[in-house]
Amino acid sequence: MEQKIEQLLRDSRLHNRIVSEETAASWINDGMTLGLSGFTRAGDAKAVPSALVDKAKQENVKVNVYTGASLGSDIDRIMADAGIVHKRLPFQADSTMRREINHGDMLFVDQHLSHTAEALRQDALNPVDFAIVEAISITENGEIIPSTSVGNSSIFVEKAEAVIIELNLAQPAEMEGLHDIYEAGEQGNREPIGLKHVDDRLGSKGIPVDIEKIKGVVITNQADSPSTIVPPDEETAVMANHLIDFLRKEKELGRLPDNLAPLQSGIGSVANAVLHGLLDSEFTDLEVYSEVLQDAVFDLMDAGKIRFASGCSITLSETKIEEVYADMNKYRDRLMLRPQEISNHPEIIRRLGLISINTPIEVDLYGNVNSTHILGTEMMNGIGGSGDFTRNSRLAIFVTKSIAKRGDVSSIVPFVSHVDHTEHDVDVIVTEQGYADLRGLAPTERVPLIIEHCAHPMYREQLYAYYKEACEQGGHTPHLLEKAFSWHTNFAKNGTMLEKSTLGV
Amino acid sequence: MEQKIEQLLRDSRLHNRIVSEETAASWINDGMTLGLSGFTRAGDAKAVPSALVDKAKQENVKVNVYTGASLGSDIDRIMADAGIVHKRLPFQADSTMRREINHGDMLFVDQHLSHTAEALRQDALNPVDFAIVEAISITENGEIIPSTSVGNSSIFVEKAEAVIIELNLAQPAEMEGLHDIYEAGEQGNREPIGLKHVDDRLGSKGIPVDIEKIKGVVITNQADSPSTIVPPDEETAVMANHLIDFLRKEKELGRLPDNLAPLQSGIGSVANAVLHGLLDSEFTDLEVYSEVLQDAVFDLMDAGKIRFASGCSITLSETKIEEVYADMNKYRDRLMLRPQEISNHPEIIRRLGLISINTPIEVDLYGNVNSTHILGTEMMNGIGGSGDFTRNSRLAIFVTKSIAKRGDVSSIVPFVSHVDHTEHDVDVIVTEQGYADLRGLAPTERVPLIIEHCAHPMYREQLYAYYKEACEQGGHTPHLLEKAFSWHTNFAKNGTMLEKSTLGV
Ligand SMILES: CC(C)(COP(=O)(O)OP(=O)(O)OC[C@H]1O[C@@H](n2cnc3c(N)ncnc32)[C@H](O)[C@@H]1OP(=O)(O)O)[C@@H](O)C(=O)NCCC(=O)NCCS
Ligand SMILES: CC(C)(COP(=O)(O)OP(=O)(O)OC[C@H]1O[C@@H](n2cnc3c(N)ncnc32)[C@H](O)[C@@H]1OP(=O)(O)O)[C@@H](O)C(=O)NCCC(=O)NCCS
Repeated sequence: MEQKIEQLLRDSRLHNRIVSEETAASWINDGMTLGLSGFTRAGDAKAVPSALVDKAKQENVKVNVYTGASLGSDIDRIMADAGIVHKRLPFQADSTMRREINHGDMLFVDQHLSHTAEALRQDALNPVDFAIVEAISITENGEIIPSTSVGNSSIFVEKAEAVIIELNLAQPAEMEGLHDIYEAGEQGNREPIGLKHVDDRLGSKGIPVDIEKIKGVVITNQADSPSTIVPPDEETAVMANHLIDFLRKEKELGRLPDNLAPLQSGIGSVANAVLHGLLDSEFTDLEVYSEVLQDAVFDLMDAGKIRFASGCSITLSETKIEEVYADMNKYRDRLMLRPQEISNHPEIIRRLGLISINTPIEVDLYGNVNSTHILGTEMMNGIGGSGDFTRNSRLAIFVTKSIAKRGDVSSIVPFVSHVDHTEHDVDVIVTEQGYADLRGLAPTERVPLIIEHCAHPMYREQLYAYYKEACEQGGHTPHLLEKAFSWHTNFAKNGTMLEKSTLGV
Repeated sequence: MEQKIEQLLRDSRLHNRIVSEETAASWINDGMTLGLSGFTRAGDAKAVPSALVDKAKQENVKVNVYTGASLGSDIDRIMADAGIVHKRLPFQADSTMRREINHGDMLFVDQHLSHTAEALRQDALNPVDFAIVEAISITENGEIIPSTSVGNSSIFVEKAEAVIIELNLAQPAEMEGLHDIYEAGEQGNREPIGLKHVDDRLGSKGIPVDIEKIKGVVITNQADSPSTIVPPDEETAVMANHLIDFLRKEKELGRLPDNLAPLQSGIGSVANAVLHGLLDSEFTDLEVYSEVLQDAVFDLMDAGKIRFASGCSITLSETKIEEVYADMNKYRDRLMLRPQEISNHPEIIRRLGLISINTPIEVDLYGNVNSTHILGTEMMNGIGGSGDFTRNSRLAIFVTKSIAKRGDVSSIVPFVSHVDHTEHDVDVIVTEQGYADLRGLAPTERVPLIIEHCAHPMYREQLYAYYKEACEQGGHTPHLLEKAFSWHTNFAKNGTMLEKSTLGV
């Protein structure tokens, strides 16, 4: 055995358990449930799932796949293509898998990312046969050191019948020490989670495991897939400025301290771009308590704006990966990665009073938010952690461009076609048009703010027309149920939400 | 001064602040914001709001009214009738007030009951001018002992410019000692909430107050209004049995201990009746961690089934009030009343792993729940604590009769006309038809369960017809947006959700 591997597998009992990915895959049978490491393309198990896809070419294999969140390395794509997934949870973001889900060829359970661990602990899901977890090492005291994400790996390892490790030599070994693994324990027999500041350490540096449970170790050498987000543009810069204006006013009113409050920022290009906007702001000494840490967090650290960032995964663009991994020691003391149950825990989010920034698909006149379903039916990615954060944060902010599809879609609609965040949970909506602060407002007070400050001018008249007609029928939340989804059905039929009259036809 | 009053107002500085309700009301000016004690008809400020309504006959007075939850003593009714309320939050349950709200004559902000205190602490709502709080005494060390509810009283007292006490001689003085007042503190600078068991005491027996802040004390002598819930009936007994069957199976599967888990039970007749059903079950040594404690909780205590109950108010029927108050000492050591922020706190609900039982207005094929809006527009009461509990509990259960309005309304619809609890948050639906356990299921797996086990037979065919047509169009969550609300619009037009064909016309 190479010396390097011996140094990484520090419990010698593991040395004779090194197997090929094919051997590991051969243990996986039809009908099993797998718990894979991986969160937003980071730290995913890469080799064994690929080998399983190959194996499925010879024999019938269909498995349930549980993960942290979306996988990279094309794993979700090839698994979907091969049709080997019976049920997938709690989140995905792959276009092929999305197609399978929306064709009804694959079952998908869209869960709050902090809920999966509880459901497993309660035995309310199929039990996990194999946890397949990427690691950068296994310590002498029997701890698995995860790589670029923690996700649900610790609960998978705890609950699984057996564990397969993917020891990935391509991941930065310097990450050892920056994970913080904490097991919440059984409900009803549980301590308060002691975290009071974003940089508090709660638990151990690795995932405790009974070495006998590790059935095999597969050696891999493959980097994470880089993130696919697009860089900030002029419009996202405008959105960032509106957000910063809002935060500045809150500070001036004494509602926020100078360094704001710990920030959470959602997945995707828009959330990243808006966070990026803080680079040019006066705010410093910022803290992040988030889920995935994207490029913007590291840009802000480099610029001395962010003091500390806690997350559950690191997902970077190609160039940023190189920069950060080449200089990991620079970030080590200012970073912590925790299980997603902890990064997204309502107890902590509420205690710290986070500012959460997430991206919706659409928002309605009253502030209800759709984060998941295009036209109410087609799954995009999943709710992810947006519900965990939105419900419990001090300020629940949603940022989106006011239109999509070159204006054929308005992001502000009369009635969202699917509800992921109810009006009770949404504080502020930001678009390139401005922002609407909905706190403490009754439904009818929110409408003009959202139309005037968030909707695109090309849709304002149409929104007012709906609202006025709805008001004639009355109610606390005026609606025309016959027409509530007419914008969506128009788009499906005519390719645009714009009404003919507005189009001048 | 009567000796009795001296014994209750133990800080002598208060003795010369006793005023009539008219005098207290004279301090309240147009445009002010009031924080009133009161939660589900219990412990509400009674005299000063009434006097304010009288005052408003002479002069223009419009105020914002914040409370714990709904008020009794007809206060919400007479305030609404007099048109003195500009904005009301976070919950109400009065038919006159409901009418005003739905006519657009009064603004109503429907909030999670655990959120109001945070919003006040953050200064995100209008500041409170007067806290008007019912008490049974004020201690020598400057604590206000609330009466039958705590609600938001402690945060109102803390944040208000001035405090008016209604010392109610009709409330049982023996309640002193069973309140537990805890202030969460500023977000970001806050300790974990130390509660690990339903009977843990966190804070003080009264609301700490700077005596100088108390501007006046009004002496009253008026009992709470009794609850208006209707007693259990044959159908609710059947529903309770389905629920107990489910809980029994969970126990047998080792997912729940013998004494289940601390129970939360929502407001209203159905939730009370279903809890009542536990009387005839094998479960003992039960614990309650809930919001309002209704008749059933005390029946279960009397029967030796409930060991301890923590809540934030006690709301009983006429006969039960007499029984319980006549024998308060019997319950003293088995009861605790806390601020609603604590009774409904996500941190505690998640830690204890509650079983929550709430009542929806309607549920859809995919498990989304409407708790608040009739036909998507008319406010019923408000979301109350149902979101606080549902999101964070171990088992989020909703119980409802499968039909309303003698069958003209199906409680199971294709698409709920308003969403208060999303499919991510709803675990089990119970009707008199049976129960559907939705945990770990994809949307299309949930549909047949909900139709077969929850929907009324008279609506099953119609539900399947919608679903089948929707499936032809596909999607992760199949829907026909053109027809999604057709059941509601049918009801509005024809007085029934039944389609003509099904009616045989
Ligand atoms: C909503 C979400 C998809 C937006 O992602 P994003 O990368 O910032 O957003 P984009 O504006 O690039 O939109 C992504 C796609 O959705 C499309 N889209 C956006 N709004 C749309 C709408 N209302 N109707 C139809 N399509 C829409 C865009 O056109 C784009 O399509 P394309 O990929 O074909 O170009 C993403 O944030 C998400 O999945 N959120 C839910 C989970 C979440 O919030 N997690 C945060 C905590 S982790
Ligand atoms: C939903 C809620 C109104 C049900 O209350 P309840 O007393 O158990 O229920 P009932 O079955 O008696 O229904 C109350 C009324 O609503 C009507 N109703 C129920 N479902 C309906 C529907 N789908 N469409 C129209 N009306 C409906 C009933 O007919 C009844 O009307 P009536 O008063 O004219 O007879 C009540 O539980 C509530 O307000 N819930 C939201 C807040 C909450 O859950 N709090 C719990 C934590 S505190």
